[in-house]
Amino acid sequence: MPQSAPAANSYLRTVFVVSDGTGITAETFAHSVLAQFENARFRHIRLPFIDSVDKAADVAARIDAAFTADGQRPIVFSTLVNSEINTRVRQANGLFLDLFSTFVEPIEQELNIKSSHSIGRSHNMANTKQYQSRIEAINFSLAHDDGQFIKGLEQADVILVGVSRCGKTPTSLYLAMQYGIKAANVPLIPDDFERGALPSAILPHRAKLFGLTIQPERLAEVRNERRPDSRYASLEQCRYEVAEAEKLMRRESIRWLSTTTKSIEEISTTVLQKIGLEGRFY
Amino acid sequence: MPQSAPAANSYLRTVFVVSDGTGITAETFAHSVLAQFENARFRHIRLPFIDSVDKAADVAARIDAAFTADGQRPIVFSTLVNSEINTRVRQANGLFLDLFSTFVEPIEQELNIKSSHSIGRSHNMANTKQYQSRIEAINFSLAHDDGQFIKGLEQADVILVGVSRCGKTPTSLYLAMQYGIKAANVPLIPDDFERGALPSAILPHRAKLFGLTIQPERLAEVRNERRPDSRYASLEQCRYEVAEAEKLMRRESIRWLSTTTKSIEEISTTVLQKIGLEGRFY
Repeated sequence: MPQSAPAANSYLRTVFVVSDGTGITAETFAHSVLAQFENARFRHIRLPFIDSVDKAADVAARIDAAFTADGQRPIVFSTLVNSEINTRVRQANGLFLDLFSTFVEPIEQELNIKSSHSIGRSHNMANTKQYQSRIEAINFSLAHDDGQFIKGLEQADVILVGVSRCGKTPTSLYLAMQYGIKAANVPLIPDDFERGALPSAILPHRAKLFGLTIQPERLAEVRNERRPDSRYASLEQCRYEVAEAEKLMRRESIRWLSTTTKSIEEISTTVLQKIGLEGRFY
Repeated sequence: MPQSAPAANSYLRTVFVVSDGTGITAETFAHSVLAQFENARFRHIRLPFIDSVDKAADVAARIDAAFTADGQRPIVFSTLVNSEINTRVRQANGLFLDLFSTFVEPIEQELNIKSSHSIGRSHNMANTKQYQSRIEAINFSLAHDDGQFIKGLEQADVILVGVSRCGKTPTSLYLAMQYGIKAANVPLIPDDFERGALPSAILPHRAKLFGLTIQPERLAEVRNERRPDSRYASLEQCRYEVAEAEKLMRRESIRWLSTTTKSIEEISTTVLQKIGLEGRFY
């Protein structure tokens, strides 16, 4: 539990994320750690591509300037592989949280090998096979969004099904972008409910189907943002579609989950777990 | 520099990523740290949503089983906020790299406040405004992919331009997904080069334009994967289009970067830096 809140400005801190690469991972990590300090306020500054001692000197100057301006030392999350660059940055006045050396050193000891200390390796793979497969998966997921292109579904790793606006599209794109998974998505629509059957195009791919569902109340909100006051967005219609979609998925033994309170990351992680694809992409 | 390679199997280690949330950030982080050990081989296992002591006991058993099977203790990256769950997992035999407490504790001391120790906060925001803006941005970027929908460009945060297959689409989607940035993209095509002018639809939005270019040789490779042996994919055509696109962008004073050796993350980070949008989304 947080302690009672003191004067708010005493908690305003500048947070730097300093990286020799994009700093995206470090930044996401910093956000998730700092989210634990609910009463504090932070100003985030990401400084990517710090790959020379000159740039390191600029970074140190910015950290010191923030210290002077705030009257409190900034919190600095850093992932700097090169020790000369790292040392230069650390001459500034800040609380340094060094993601790289904090963890590389114990692993070096454990494995009894030295790390390569090469800069920017994590994303530096624009022409690798793994990277190409991500791009291919993005193209696949785009081409197979919203059931628009049924040909090629045999190449899909997973086919998401569910009512319109239940979260299929962002999940498909995230699975492709993050994991290189070819994720198609096909809507379940009133036509299908009237026929009482899945769209015929996906029947040959039953083993790849995974369902998404959503609370009707939440679905009505989402649809109202898109088409306010339409029949499509009415609570009555949403209730009908969700009930019918769940009935259909239950009858067809399609695994499904509810997206109502889940983020794209949580939905994607759960889909991967349930379809057993998780280990495939590492 | 890595030391001379010993017997390969002595380096095969099981790596667990254990999280009370999705574990995606921890996993990306683990990959980037372990990429520094080029001669080592790792088997990654992500165990997400570990939010009870019972699940923690299962995790500990899996770690111990891997220890027995490998004959070496696994490396465990963990982000477990709850100390009871964390303590239970750490009863297993592994090298524990605790992303959470390693950094939360020094921040608690620095700020002189306790962290809230609440589980899964980082992605637990499916219904927040920030999360909604990500979903909106994804829908926007999809609707404005490849110049297919010109209406609404005034709402774009950035409009990427460049020849077909230079990386506009994955970059637009990544900017939307990661940062909630509304990124449209519009191709520059031979028609534009013959007229010697930008597509008229984007002229009113000149300040939002950002160019992507690519080496003709790389472009020919990418296009050949899509349409093998076509005129579209020929090196001659790629050289012509890239030269003309760069000429046009230079004449129109459009900022641009080359995507040839860059990952989506690196392109997106650089675009954000150059258009000065970086600070906007934190």
